[in-house]
Amino acid sequence: MRIAFDEMKNKIKEVFIKYGMSDENAEICARIHTESSRDGIYSHGTNRVARFIDYIKKGWVDINAEPSLEKEFGAMAVYNGNMGPGIINALFATDQAIELAKEHGIGLVGLKNTTHWMRGGTYGLYAANKGYVAISWTNTEACMPPWGGTECRLGNNPFVMAAPTETDPVMIDMAMSQYAYGKLQVTRLAGKKLPFPGGFDKNGVLTDEPGPIEESMRILPMGYWKGSSFSFMLDILGAVLSDGVGAADIDNIGKGSCGGCSQIFMIIDPEKLSDRKHIDEVIQKAKEYIKTSALDETSKSIWYPGEDYTIFRAENTEQGVFVDDSVWEEINAL
Amino acid sequence: MRIAFDEMKNKIKEVFIKYGMSDENAEICARIHTESSRDGIYSHGTNRVARFIDYIKKGWVDINAEPSLEKEFGAMAVYNGNMGPGIINALFATDQAIELAKEHGIGLVGLKNTTHWMRGGTYGLYAANKGYVAISWTNTEACMPPWGGTECRLGNNPFVMAAPTETDPVMIDMAMSQYAYGKLQVTRLAGKKLPFPGGFDKNGVLTDEPGPIEESMRILPMGYWKGSSFSFMLDILGAVLSDGVGAADIDNIGKGSCGGCSQIFMIIDPEKLSDRKHIDEVIQKAKEYIKTSALDETSKSIWYPGEDYTIFRAENTEQGVFVDDSVWEEINAL
Repeated sequence: MRIAFDEMKNKIKEVFIKYGMSDENAEICARIHTESSRDGIYSHGTNRVARFIDYIKKGWVDINAEPSLEKEFGAMAVYNGNMGPGIINALFATDQAIELAKEHGIGLVGLKNTTHWMRGGTYGLYAANKGYVAISWTNTEACMPPWGGTECRLGNNPFVMAAPTETDPVMIDMAMSQYAYGKLQVTRLAGKKLPFPGGFDKNGVLTDEPGPIEESMRILPMGYWKGSSFSFMLDILGAVLSDGVGAADIDNIGKGSCGGCSQIFMIIDPEKLSDRKHIDEVIQKAKEYIKTSALDETSKSIWYPGEDYTIFRAENTEQGVFVDDSVWEEINAL
Repeated sequence: MRIAFDEMKNKIKEVFIKYGMSDENAEICARIHTESSRDGIYSHGTNRVARFIDYIKKGWVDINAEPSLEKEFGAMAVYNGNMGPGIINALFATDQAIELAKEHGIGLVGLKNTTHWMRGGTYGLYAANKGYVAISWTNTEACMPPWGGTECRLGNNPFVMAAPTETDPVMIDMAMSQYAYGKLQVTRLAGKKLPFPGGFDKNGVLTDEPGPIEESMRILPMGYWKGSSFSFMLDILGAVLSDGVGAADIDNIGKGSCGGCSQIFMIIDPEKLSDRKHIDEVIQKAKEYIKTSALDETSKSIWYPGEDYTIFRAENTEQGVFVDDSVWEEINAL
């Protein structure tokens, strides 16, 4: 079904307040869940509301905790997220990194002991809409085997890069697995195959059938060994630069997806390095350049990073934000 | 054949001096080419010496140019590489970023108008061996189609992340294509197939045969659409944060591979955020954790990022640095 943006946001806010969140934080979190769905990231928008409430009930998220400063040096700082709501913590950390970037041109904030930040792109867009370049990532519990192995030892560690443009930011927001488990499930339920192999079956054969991958849990890192190594580096650098922990310890904490994870927020003021006109020209030229390529046999267009969400946003703004019937029922029953 | 490290380095130095490089810079460049081969990165070690000389002859590299400061603000600076030797420029930029990190905890140097930096991992290892975390990348001429297209509009834009450990640094140094063109060539000449599909043939069919990919030039981005978008972001951020240019303009400059490219060097002092003991523990634990996974059907070990080069290094140090006979003859004929 489709629900108007404000109606969706207000309902989610009501739920968050019911479970003990302050009015101010509930407004922010509800808006961000709704914006994520509006941008087509349903998996981390409406679809995560019930799980967030479940985590609060289990005591895995401390709904009223606030981040606290642990260290600062020059253009960098470390905050303890104190297991508070991931969205509130991550927005706070982004704001702190922006403040550091105002003074030093660049700012790095490490956020440890936090919880699921939902859509990583939220923080990239937030900073880029204020004119900054953002580079952020989170580590997660292990959910993907390392290259050469069969058992989950690496997180999917979403990595975000965003840059401001004259219109909407350009952005990547990508997990280190080729497909999310959510994509496997949706594809299986639709009786379809993945567009490309997404993992190994239990016999070690690469397959585009989602079911056997869900069973083996041998989900494929993007680019095979490359995504595996990239995930490793994001895991350890997340922990090292936040005085926090990596996947091995997140697995031990056992407080759900991303419970106790480490996140990095790097913010750069590009106008201290290039003038605005040059920045706009570089990005516009790159957008146009890729679109001068001939299309391949199956594609109708070549997209620049982030173009997809602007298309979803337009549709969901005009027609109401899409939400799965069962998901909306679940939220209303909370 | 195998050549002792010093003999190889001295021969390459001799060649660089012959073509006009200062003794000091020739020593540095020769050492780095030799170290790259010693670490198993033959493609950017000995195998690139003749091409570098060719670029000098064509006037595409100004062998005696020095980088000049263009802008500085807080923890950031932009240098113009003045089309000087890529290795000298990139080492200089890394050193400048280290100086900024000493003062601010983090430093970012954008280097524009530079030339091929050879092995990107050189700068990651250099900084990590001094105790710093490094995040660096370069943009390049277009050599890969964007996702959905058939014509080259994106660079392969190598991306480097390195971190210090108690022993050798952990590091990724990865291009955005699943395979390098060099790997396609070597595989074809050996009459073999790629381990996984590496691109599309001219009919748009994914293939693990290298020949048809070399012919179509439809090399595959790592992780399909993910590597394509990541490459786009590295291209534009390389240009934006260095006041430099992206792939579209590098293609116009027409001064060979990476001629006029833009590079970013971010250096972070991790000990300003975590203490040394925590850093060592995080990385050691992650290394051990991935190795606790059961091996898959075809693997003999699970490697952490960078473990491969330490294995090559040990072998090439003990037995002499491997070099293809024809490559060594070519260097001796220069």
